[in-house]
Amino acid sequence: MPVNLAMPQPDQLHPVKGVSLGIACAGIKKPGRKDLLVIRLGEKARVAGVFTLNRFCAAPVIVAKAHLQGGKPIRALLVNTGNANAGTGEDGMARARQTCASLAALLGCAAEQVLPYSTGVILEPLPLDKIVAGLPAAVADLQEGNWFDAAQAIMTTDIQPKAVSKQIDIDGTIVTVTGIAKGSGMIHPNMATMLGYVTTDAAVSQPALDAMVRHAADHSFNCITVDGDTSTNDSFMLIASGEAGLAEISDPASSQYAKLCDAVTQVAAQLAQAIVRDGEGATKFMTIRVEGGASREECRLVAYAIAHSPLVKTAFFASDPNLGRILAAIGYAGIADLDVAKIRLYLGDVLVAENGGRSAAYREEDGARIMKEAEILVRVELNRGTADATVWTCDFSYDYVKINAEYRS
Amino acid sequence: MPVNLAMPQPDQLHPVKGVSLGIACAGIKKPGRKDLLVIRLGEKARVAGVFTLNRFCAAPVIVAKAHLQGGKPIRALLVNTGNANAGTGEDGMARARQTCASLAALLGCAAEQVLPYSTGVILEPLPLDKIVAGLPAAVADLQEGNWFDAAQAIMTTDIQPKAVSKQIDIDGTIVTVTGIAKGSGMIHPNMATMLGYVTTDAAVSQPALDAMVRHAADHSFNCITVDGDTSTNDSFMLIASGEAGLAEISDPASSQYAKLCDAVTQVAAQLAQAIVRDGEGATKFMTIRVEGGASREECRLVAYAIAHSPLVKTAFFASDPNLGRILAAIGYAGIADLDVAKIRLYLGDVLVAENGGRSAAYREEDGARIMKEAEILVRVELNRGTADATVWTCDFSYDYVKINAEYRS
Repeated sequence: MPVNLAMPQPDQLHPVKGVSLGIACAGIKKPGRKDLLVIRLGEKARVAGVFTLNRFCAAPVIVAKAHLQGGKPIRALLVNTGNANAGTGEDGMARARQTCASLAALLGCAAEQVLPYSTGVILEPLPLDKIVAGLPAAVADLQEGNWFDAAQAIMTTDIQPKAVSKQIDIDGTIVTVTGIAKGSGMIHPNMATMLGYVTTDAAVSQPALDAMVRHAADHSFNCITVDGDTSTNDSFMLIASGEAGLAEISDPASSQYAKLCDAVTQVAAQLAQAIVRDGEGATKFMTIRVEGGASREECRLVAYAIAHSPLVKTAFFASDPNLGRILAAIGYAGIADLDVAKIRLYLGDVLVAENGGRSAAYREEDGARIMKEAEILVRVELNRGTADATVWTCDFSYDYVKINAEYRS
Repeated sequence: MPVNLAMPQPDQLHPVKGVSLGIACAGIKKPGRKDLLVIRLGEKARVAGVFTLNRFCAAPVIVAKAHLQGGKPIRALLVNTGNANAGTGEDGMARARQTCASLAALLGCAAEQVLPYSTGVILEPLPLDKIVAGLPAAVADLQEGNWFDAAQAIMTTDIQPKAVSKQIDIDGTIVTVTGIAKGSGMIHPNMATMLGYVTTDAAVSQPALDAMVRHAADHSFNCITVDGDTSTNDSFMLIASGEAGLAEISDPASSQYAKLCDAVTQVAAQLAQAIVRDGEGATKFMTIRVEGGASREECRLVAYAIAHSPLVKTAFFASDPNLGRILAAIGYAGIADLDVAKIRLYLGDVLVAENGGRSAAYREEDGARIMKEAEILVRVELNRGTADATVWTCDFSYDYVKINAEYRS
């Protein structure tokens, strides 16, 4: 079961004017499952995105990047689950382009105005016929109130749909930010995430939107890991429909930009955390906070060494304060001149280690008390600078092995 | 059960003249278990070693390095299991030194002539009284034929003892190489291993011995991983007792050096592979071979990305040829200018992927046939140079989670 992850309430997901969503069951992997999503954008919409740095990135990632860079206004996004169209070579590229052309014909725009996204099994041909056959139903379903169904339509091994919505006041105008995401395994986003879509009805210039998507990604999807595997298909898109009736936001130094960027980043961070809470087999949600580093990069090295250690993750699964494993991970994180005598390790509010060893005041029952909780803060003070970083992750359970051993069966 | 790991036969472990071994049950973690090993060295013996690069390295590692560098001839090594004496600060250092002094008093040498090694749980005080009380029995047990018992005495979560022995002919003299090792979890040696001890009766100069231990480590213990966690206590020691009646080997360009170095490296590699075969929860032994790289370093990056991926490891556990996960790992290994269209991926003798996608000739049943085997070769051709690297690893099973969730209970 996901860790403290509330089911999104459909009536609390505010529609975003200028963004409509249509869902269909195309039978890509299993019949009768929502597996196709069309997001249609209005005339004023602008789109920005960040994508996986995996060199084996999927065909739809390559096509989506090319269409975004092509400069034509984007009119629609097309998402399928059940097949990642990754590791599929030239044939996969052709199929990704064909899905765009088919949707474009239905919507009356050019193929280059459609961005494709796929998620699911790697190394198998995209079932083009099923997707093309499913498109008319998805287009017929287009409406602004479809956010909950859209969140369901992009799930793969996710147990729960992930959707977050909030409204803010900018200069007396109500601005909406609503987003969805999917993902629970192969999660270690590198500059992007699995699939995340955050939209707003604010008007934002393209350079400001590009800056905003990067900031939001770096403080949300780029701070999570489930298993350390960076996906071939990670994509995080930020869409500004420009329908809120507010002047265009273009100055990154303006209060309007700051307000919207905060809201977008909060929505993205909640979605990213939802992915970890719904991580494959997760029973615990851990926040790894590393402080006092010489740079943010070295803080992230330490945080990810802890978050990726199978020994640390299985100890958390067992609620066993086997905290030496955390010290070992700090030690091999890759900081060559690390002085371990300066480090302090806290579990929740309990000081566990200092001066290179166990704290004199530490008692096993204090550690055990924290380890029993479903939400655990691991805090490391490096005491060698002023930088910090936070990573969110989950534990490693029997069910993680089960889910991934049986994934294709 | 370990993967194709034969139980060492005591009568096939050749004694090494000038090296005697004594075992005791000191009750460090559990009563009645062999947990203390003394290795006593003769007058002519020389010792070289490599140690963990983990910054949180254990107290005995620090003490052993200092004693080795002190320049006094080493007379004995002392190994305890059940407690790693790691993350124990200044108090741990004092306890490690005290164990050396106690053994030195029994053997009639200086404390600085004893090297200490510990393995077991981290962050708990070393039970000094139990170790000191157990030493007289270990010393009384000293004999050259004790190799099998010694291999048992250093086990922790290991299911099987690990010992390898071979004899070679150098200039008409029979030279013996016999070694033992332990380890099955927290295995990702970085310049060293868990605990490995390889001895020979050849005479080797100190510089030649130092070169030989580095070469052997780089082609054995530094090529394995179980879970990617680099231990705080990794140590690999090479001991030359000088009792074989052969002239001292000191020229690294000589045929004598080459022959001995080969034998030592083979023994070390077999011990390293034995650690993987006995990896926690292992059901399969995988050889990851990466060829055609621009450098050995980038080949190792790719090999370790595959070997560390929980998704790859669980797919092997399930005997599921979900080979897209291997492509994804290659893609995120960190080679920025990797051209995925040039890569070929083989499973055993089956070509799986080429030209950025699945090979046209690949059939799922061929992949499934290889995946059913207990020993699997994954071979990656990068086609961008002439370097290569090999890494040995195992799969990721329910039992890995079980063993590590219950480790301290």
